[in-house]
Amino acid sequence: MPVGGPNAPQREVYLDFAAATPVDRRVLAAMQPYWSACFYNPSAPYAPARGARDAYERARSSLARLIGARPDCVVLTAGATEANNLAFATLSEDGHVVVDAIEHESVLACAASHPRKTVLVAPDGRVDPEDIRRAIRPKTELVSVELANGEIGTIQPVRQIACIVAQERARRLAAGQDRPIWLHTDASQAAGALSVEVSSLNCDLMTLSAAKIYGPKQVGLLWAADDVRLRPLIVGGGQESGLRSGTENVAGVVGFAQALELATRMRAEEVPELRRLRNLLQRRLAEEFPWAVFSGPRQDKLRLPGLLHVSFPLLDARRLVISLERRGVYVGTGSACAASRMRSSHVLDAIGVPRQVAQGSLRITIGRPTTEEDIRYAADQISEVVSGEVRRCGLTDRQLTEAGRASYNDAVLGGSRQTGGLL
Amino acid sequence: MPVGGPNAPQREVYLDFAAATPVDRRVLAAMQPYWSACFYNPSAPYAPARGARDAYERARSSLARLIGARPDCVVLTAGATEANNLAFATLSEDGHVVVDAIEHESVLACAASHPRKTVLVAPDGRVDPEDIRRAIRPKTELVSVELANGEIGTIQPVRQIACIVAQERARRLAAGQDRPIWLHTDASQAAGALSVEVSSLNCDLMTLSAAKIYGPKQVGLLWAADDVRLRPLIVGGGQESGLRSGTENVAGVVGFAQALELATRMRAEEVPELRRLRNLLQRRLAEEFPWAVFSGPRQDKLRLPGLLHVSFPLLDARRLVISLERRGVYVGTGSACAASRMRSSHVLDAIGVPRQVAQGSLRITIGRPTTEEDIRYAADQISEVVSGEVRRCGLTDRQLTEAGRASYNDAVLGGSRQTGGLL
Repeated sequence: MPVGGPNAPQREVYLDFAAATPVDRRVLAAMQPYWSACFYNPSAPYAPARGARDAYERARSSLARLIGARPDCVVLTAGATEANNLAFATLSEDGHVVVDAIEHESVLACAASHPRKTVLVAPDGRVDPEDIRRAIRPKTELVSVELANGEIGTIQPVRQIACIVAQERARRLAAGQDRPIWLHTDASQAAGALSVEVSSLNCDLMTLSAAKIYGPKQVGLLWAADDVRLRPLIVGGGQESGLRSGTENVAGVVGFAQALELATRMRAEEVPELRRLRNLLQRRLAEEFPWAVFSGPRQDKLRLPGLLHVSFPLLDARRLVISLERRGVYVGTGSACAASRMRSSHVLDAIGVPRQVAQGSLRITIGRPTTEEDIRYAADQISEVVSGEVRRCGLTDRQLTEAGRASYNDAVLGGSRQTGGLL
Repeated sequence: MPVGGPNAPQREVYLDFAAATPVDRRVLAAMQPYWSACFYNPSAPYAPARGARDAYERARSSLARLIGARPDCVVLTAGATEANNLAFATLSEDGHVVVDAIEHESVLACAASHPRKTVLVAPDGRVDPEDIRRAIRPKTELVSVELANGEIGTIQPVRQIACIVAQERARRLAAGQDRPIWLHTDASQAAGALSVEVSSLNCDLMTLSAAKIYGPKQVGLLWAADDVRLRPLIVGGGQESGLRSGTENVAGVVGFAQALELATRMRAEEVPELRRLRNLLQRRLAEEFPWAVFSGPRQDKLRLPGLLHVSFPLLDARRLVISLERRGVYVGTGSACAASRMRSSHVLDAIGVPRQVAQGSLRITIGRPTTEEDIRYAADQISEVVSGEVRRCGLTDRQLTEAGRASYNDAVLGGSRQTGGLL
């Protein structure tokens, strides 16, 4: 979008859709009545309140339909972090968990209070299903592997992992062991780009977020298969079948359903466009900075279409972000949470990106409103800013190439090294 | 508000503001930018996202100022139920709690998983501070007494209870015992009507809800004094100083601050008007139905100004609510949660209302938009509906009076029996 003002940049280009999405105007329109005209408490006994209840349950049914599930298996929560926490509340006191090293912080934080095995990932971020198999213990009750990573875009082999979990379940059944084992997948970052049909993923629990698909913040859901016994984190009035008490966020949930409806309907059209724009940007940066390092899988089918993770070795991402911001281009450095606390990213650590590469990392995510002009403008700005920093630091191409090469092989996409290529 | 349509009632009069409030248009206006123009993740590193962060922290500061607290002692939550649950997370494994019998279901549900003493209340719902003193054990770590009850409107002597808790704290200090004891008050139902300044209440923890003061649903806060050690219920990205992870609900919290600002500013003007309208309705009903039973304290200063709890002995509240609904008058039966599940109210049980009186109970709550015309219309409709039911059931005044008298003395307000008058 072009902008005005004397010192204003030519355009403003937001490229951090993995951190937050604006609420789609159709979503906002769907929410509007439930703040004013139909603001009622869905538990109240008169007809207009039943209207609010109906709207809420219709939204739950839509969400269920869109993930191929039954409405009564959907627990609406105040966001994906809460849903992930609720998934971990299935664990018994000595229940063991298996997670991979690049899960969202909320999954890792939940896992941290249980006996656990953290499975390493390949340099492109992929989990090897056989590693999950080896990590499962007799007391393992939960395996949690996200559908797609929000920092480097890796899509995980959730279906294969589901087979392994199913095999373990069958083994326990045959052995007369009654400890359950469930597969949870956090699909928050995936929902805009991939199918989130639970019957095809074959998982037992799934987290979704409205905030990542042009819906409101702090609205999410946990789907749990019939036989999963959930325990509430928040008790009280008994809403959500006793699994999440508190007066229902009718507007938020109606918006969530509308957002997932739109995301599902537009997916076939949106995904190729996101991919095209991302690849355009990647090619452009790879050409200009052959020493730049791209993280995540190389194959398009293994990574989120709108996400580009690029590291400029020896440069400081914070400086890049600030310079880009002055030029109207807004990108992330690693995950938003980690970025704001200026911590190193656990994801980059896990895929073995050395510090001098990681520190110059940008996470660029493209979204529904992004145009080719936006991408061309952003590429120009990134190009100028990076070149400027290289000059300012007096770095030579050779130094930059050496720094990037330190831990990466020469597997090349568009002339550039990529962590996914590391053997 | 007058309404149209061939079979439509003459007016629609919503009188269930304790169950839900519409979002004030000024609140909605304050929220609007944070869904679209400033939708950013507050943790993202570029300037516009810092704008979202600033708005969020400004809202926290406003909320803190309005309750006379420091911003860093305010934890923003997804609603009052979550805030109440978070307050109980201060308890150590063997920590004992003291609650009263008419607390909100979320407080009672939290208390249920701890060793506890449930203090009885007087027939008007008041807690006797001396009962709290007697209930405190050496292991008591939390006393939780709401500022005002949402079903019968009783305002609790929180300041006096705070003195008792402070005395116990001083005693432990002198005795070299280091187990903490805190006073928590759920002020969700009180915030529109009473001061919620923590320094004047002298509590250690306080819950507030946006949804009861014309703000959005599932937005609330827990204030905790400096020295209270809170433990998170929901872990992850470390938002809210690690006490409530999850991307912040910027729009919701900005709306909450605006709602509390309005409630505080308008309180002096609103409260007398709510009281006047409530008393108008009460006098009218008491005159027409001298056998009706009003619950809650008789003195205006001891009860919420906009709340009227009236029981019509031997009648069925569900039938009354449905008949009133057809006439455009929307009232509650007990608390919304209990009502929808057609359970008997734990509050009415606790104040000793016999079943044949309790079953005919309406909770009528007046709000910001209510006019005198609304009240006159509602009084007419209630009057006709109740008279009709009395005729339909063939009940005599004598039967009705006897039924109401069964457990009540003759303490009279406007000619009517009141539970508050029971000795």
